[in-house]
Amino acid sequence: MDAETGIEFGEIEPPSDQARSAAIALHDKLVKPAGSLGRLEELGVWIAACQGQAPPRPFTRPRVVVFAGDHGIAARGVSAYPREVTSQLVSTMLTGGAAINVLAAAAGAGVRVVDMAVDTEESAMRSIGEFKVRRGSGSIDVEDALTDAEVRAAVSAGRKVADAEVDGGADLLIAGDLGIGNSTPASVLVAALTGSEPVAVVGRGSGIDDTTWMRKATAVRDALRRARVVLADPLALLRTSGGADLAAMAGFLAQAAVRRTPVVLDGLVVSSAALLAEELAPGARRWWMSGQLTGEPAHALALEQLDLGGLLDLDVRLGEGTGAVTALPLLMMAARVLAEMTTHEQSGVAGPLTPVPAP
Amino acid sequence: MDAETGIEFGEIEPPSDQARSAAIALHDKLVKPAGSLGRLEELGVWIAACQGQAPPRPFTRPRVVVFAGDHGIAARGVSAYPREVTSQLVSTMLTGGAAINVLAAAAGAGVRVVDMAVDTEESAMRSIGEFKVRRGSGSIDVEDALTDAEVRAAVSAGRKVADAEVDGGADLLIAGDLGIGNSTPASVLVAALTGSEPVAVVGRGSGIDDTTWMRKATAVRDALRRARVVLADPLALLRTSGGADLAAMAGFLAQAAVRRTPVVLDGLVVSSAALLAEELAPGARRWWMSGQLTGEPAHALALEQLDLGGLLDLDVRLGEGTGAVTALPLLMMAARVLAEMTTHEQSGVAGPLTPVPAP
Repeated sequence: MDAETGIEFGEIEPPSDQARSAAIALHDKLVKPAGSLGRLEELGVWIAACQGQAPPRPFTRPRVVVFAGDHGIAARGVSAYPREVTSQLVSTMLTGGAAINVLAAAAGAGVRVVDMAVDTEESAMRSIGEFKVRRGSGSIDVEDALTDAEVRAAVSAGRKVADAEVDGGADLLIAGDLGIGNSTPASVLVAALTGSEPVAVVGRGSGIDDTTWMRKATAVRDALRRARVVLADPLALLRTSGGADLAAMAGFLAQAAVRRTPVVLDGLVVSSAALLAEELAPGARRWWMSGQLTGEPAHALALEQLDLGGLLDLDVRLGEGTGAVTALPLLMMAARVLAEMTTHEQSGVAGPLTPVPAP
Repeated sequence: MDAETGIEFGEIEPPSDQARSAAIALHDKLVKPAGSLGRLEELGVWIAACQGQAPPRPFTRPRVVVFAGDHGIAARGVSAYPREVTSQLVSTMLTGGAAINVLAAAAGAGVRVVDMAVDTEESAMRSIGEFKVRRGSGSIDVEDALTDAEVRAAVSAGRKVADAEVDGGADLLIAGDLGIGNSTPASVLVAALTGSEPVAVVGRGSGIDDTTWMRKATAVRDALRRARVVLADPLALLRTSGGADLAAMAGFLAQAAVRRTPVVLDGLVVSSAALLAEELAPGARRWWMSGQLTGEPAHALALEQLDLGGLLDLDVRLGEGTGAVTALPLLMMAARVLAEMTTHEQSGVAGPLTPVPAP
C-alpha cells in the first residue's frame, strides 16, 4: 500500500464492550435514581467504550478540523451565496471571527482549517494549503468532481490530518465543512447511497428560495444519474460526485475510527462524508455520534443509514462543525458524571424502596 | 410591607424591547446565513433583552441554588425512595459528589444548598439552615403543608437568597430541588393552577412502579380537593398544598425577575414553583427560559401555562437543577456568538445572492 495514496483502512475494531458494561454498572451505583440522567448516561457509556475504560477520562483536547473547498456545481446557481464567499469565510475563520471559532472557544475546542479545493490562490491561504488538490471540484452534473489521483490524494490528506491530530493528543474529533454549494454533492452522495430520489434529498441548505431549490433539484438529478453508475465503489463515487473536501472528510472520519478516537458528527455535509467513510471502513460508525438533528432531509436519511440518533435539535444548520460543537459540553458533562459523582456506597445514601421500572 | 414577611413583588418590568431589536439586527449582520444558528439565535436575543444591551455580556457568575425539604406526603409511599434519602443527598451535595455539583462545575456555575424543611437536626446541616422553617412540610392530603407564618417566612427566604446572589454578582440564576416526595406537591400545584385532573399530572417521578403510581395518584386526588378551595390565593395555595422548599423557590424565581436577572428553569418541581411565582409576580415568566423538556406530564402542563418551550430533550429527570445546568453552555454560546462573531462588513464577506426565505 502506497503511503501517499493508500486508502485501505483495514478492519475497524469496535469500541470496548467490557468498558461499556463497566460504565453501565457504574451508573447504577451513583447517587441518583437509575437512568435519571437520560441521554447523558448513554453518552457516558459510549465515551467509556471508546476510551476502553470506566469511568472515562473527561476530554482534554477536543479538536475541530474544517475542510474547505469550492464546487463547480455552484455555478449552476444552487446556493443563496456567491462562490467567492468560500474564500472570504476561510479568511474570517483564520482571524477567529467565524461562528465555529466562537463556539469552539466556548466549548474548549481548538480549530484547524484545511484548504482542500478553495477557488483562490490568495497568499493568505498558503498556510493552510498543504493538502490542496485543486481550485474547485468539477461540476458534478456534467463531469467528475476529481481525477482518480486527486480523490486518492484527498482521502489520504484527511487520513494524515486525523493522524496528526491524534498524535498531537486530540481525544475527540469533529469535522466541519466550508464551501458554497457543498450541500449539493452531499445530497447526491446521500441519495446514491440510500437509494433516494432527488426530491427526497434536496433541502434549503444555507437558505435558498424556491427558484434556487428547483435549480438545485435539477443539478442533483443530473449528478445522481452519473453517480449511480459507480455506486458500488466508494472511491469512484467520491471522484464522480463528491469533491476534494468531502473525500478528505471521509478519510478523516475513517482514520479517526482506526485510531480509536471518538467523533461528533455535524450536519448534512459531514454526515454524507460519513456514509462514504463507513463504506471505506465498515464499522467506523461505532466511533461516531451525531451532535444534532437538522431540518435537512438528506441529513436525516444519512443518520438513519448510519443508525445514529441526534443529540440536539436546535435548528442549527450553519455547517463549519457548529452543530457538533454545541453538543460538546454535553459529552464533557457525560464523562465527568461517571468520573466524579459519588456512589451510594461512598455516601451512605439508601437505595430505592421498590424495584425501579425499566426506563 | 414587613421586611421579614413581605410578599409583595410589585409590577415586574419586562426585558428590554430595544435591546431585543438591536440583537435581532446584529444577528443579521454576522458572517452566517440569516437564522442558521436556529435556537441559539433566539437565546442570544433573549439574553440581550434581559441584560438590556446588544451584544450581551457572556455570563460571568451563573449560580445554582438548591432548595431542600422533606414532605409529609412521602409517608404515603408516593416515592421510590425512603424519606431519609433527602438528608443523605444534602450531605452528599455539601461534599461535592452529587450530580448537580459535577454538572455545575462542568458548566462553570457555583452551587448553594439551602435547607428549608429537611427532616433532620444533624449538626452538619446547620451551615445551610439559616432559613429553615420546620422539619418536613405537612402531609397535604389531610393537612396544610405550612402555617401562614411559615409560608411567608419561606417565600421571604427565597427572596432574600435571590437578593444575596444578585448582590454577590450572579448574572444568571438556576433553582434546583431536592426532597423525597416533592413531585407530589408539585403535581398538585400544577393540577390546581392548570385545571387538570389527577391522572393527567401524575408521572413516574424518580422512577416509581405501578403500585406506587396508584398511591401517588390517590394522594394527588386527595390533596387537590384541599387545594381547589384556595385556588385564587397563591400564598394560601403554597400553604395548603406546597411546602417550604416550593414556597422558597417561588419567592426566589419572582425576586430574580424583580432584580432583572435571567433564570433557567429545571424540571417539574421548579416549574410548579414558577407557576406560583408568576401568580405572585405577574410577568416574571418573561425573565425565565426552560432548560429542558422531561417526560413528566405535569411539567409539560406547567410550561404550556407559562408559554415557555424547552431547549434540551435528553430525558434528564433527576432534579437538583441538573436539567437547567445542562443547558447552560448553550446560553453561554448564544451570548458569545453575538459578542464575538465578525460582521459581514468587518470581514468583507458578500451577502446572499437571493432574498433569504423566512425561516
